[in-house]
Amino acid sequence: MEGKSKLILVTNDDGIYSKGIQTLADIASEFGKVIVAAPLESQSGMSHAITIKYPLRIKKVAVKNKIDYYGCSGTPVDALKLAMNKIVNKRPDLILSGINHGSNASTSIVYSGTMAAAIEGCINQVPSIGFSILDWNENTEFSHLLPYIKEIIKKVIDQGIPPGTCLNVNMPMLNGETINGIKICRQNKGYWQEEFDHRKDPQDNEYYWLTGEYVNLEPDATDTDEWALKNNYISVVPVTIDFTCYNAINLIKHWEKY
Amino acid sequence: MEGKSKLILVTNDDGIYSKGIQTLADIASEFGKVIVAAPLESQSGMSHAITIKYPLRIKKVAVKNKIDYYGCSGTPVDALKLAMNKIVNKRPDLILSGINHGSNASTSIVYSGTMAAAIEGCINQVPSIGFSILDWNENTEFSHLLPYIKEIIKKVIDQGIPPGTCLNVNMPMLNGETINGIKICRQNKGYWQEEFDHRKDPQDNEYYWLTGEYVNLEPDATDTDEWALKNNYISVVPVTIDFTCYNAINLIKHWEKY
Repeated sequence: MEGKSKLILVTNDDGIYSKGIQTLADIASEFGKVIVAAPLESQSGMSHAITIKYPLRIKKVAVKNKIDYYGCSGTPVDALKLAMNKIVNKRPDLILSGINHGSNASTSIVYSGTMAAAIEGCINQVPSIGFSILDWNENTEFSHLLPYIKEIIKKVIDQGIPPGTCLNVNMPMLNGETINGIKICRQNKGYWQEEFDHRKDPQDNEYYWLTGEYVNLEPDATDTDEWALKNNYISVVPVTIDFTCYNAINLIKHWEKY
Repeated sequence: MEGKSKLILVTNDDGIYSKGIQTLADIASEFGKVIVAAPLESQSGMSHAITIKYPLRIKKVAVKNKIDYYGCSGTPVDALKLAMNKIVNKRPDLILSGINHGSNASTSIVYSGTMAAAIEGCINQVPSIGFSILDWNENTEFSHLLPYIKEIIKKVIDQGIPPGTCLNVNMPMLNGETINGIKICRQNKGYWQEEFDHRKDPQDNEYYWLTGEYVNLEPDATDTDEWALKNNYISVVPVTIDFTCYNAINLIKHWEKY
């Protein structure tokens, strides 16, 4: 993959009208022809969900900076599948997802619609990158991040990434500090400790809001995405679509029985 | 983990009223105290989705064979999180998910609510197993599978599985043949080739139903779950919750920049 005039499909999970997807689409347009296809509404936390019970719709909702924007009624993965099948006429050369508001580092990758789209691209043998920023503010200023995002896209276009691998890129929240650089990392071990917010509705029925706090199981590790982000680096984790735990195969091989 | 009186949480993605979850709960009750908590409705294809935009509800909907059944308004992962937080008073000793109708072998694991629940259990440091059968018939007879399911549960209780690993167990569709045994496998490489079903609604607006066919990228491999299932074996894939592609770290390490 090299040169300009690549076909680049851009998606996200925050929805087609978010600032992050437009920023990403505009950057991508420096590298080729861009088509944007994303959920019509926010689909945060939808992970790799696909819509089976309901029909899907897709339509062009805008043209911005000469880029066509298609809105889809479903999840990020629905939007990507539908766009690849019905909007673009060939397999894209690159799939970009984001820029997501909120961290998709560590265990958060499993809940992430942004990263699910990147994983889906990778399953379809298209080099794919998910971008997230540790900042929930919808009006976040991205300008200081643009050179890094461009550089990562350029590296993937020029050098490729191994088949079966996509990239999980997270960018730190800065408080007046500067970015220290780009770190290639592994996924930090941790989990979300739920603290459901318990309420009663006007009919006196109980309900819950899902909330929680991230528990870092290896706060002292220095080769993880969590460490990189805490230290003002952009974290890049190469993510596999093969979830096999190969070490464990050997450990339980003797369970086989014929 | 050994002996009886373990606390076992059983969930699924086909919904609390499915036959598969009751079969699994009844088997589990031979190993300890069982609590069932699952979505009120079918949540197939919901993957690791969590519900952020809507409140969640959970209530006891049945008692069968002395086992309490709790129905949850959300996804499989919502149900598991809510049950672990609000229903059981301690971390379960084991989480079982299924028995799912339809394959969760190969790439289907990423779309699967059944396996998402097992992965969520594993993230929460609870040994977890997802069970699926390659048969969409809701009235499938499970009796010939029971000894194998029991054996796999017993192995996990007696010997444990490595931390950060859960099991993806798929059981073949048999056409009068017998099961050849249990195979420990790796995840087959493949993808779903979509063939969206294009229709028009009564208002003449276009819509699509998601359909597709599985494409096996390595039909000749003999160490995969797909091969095992085609050859009438029960496939057991140890699944990692660390999605880092460690080989790729070395390949792109030189992209680092400070």
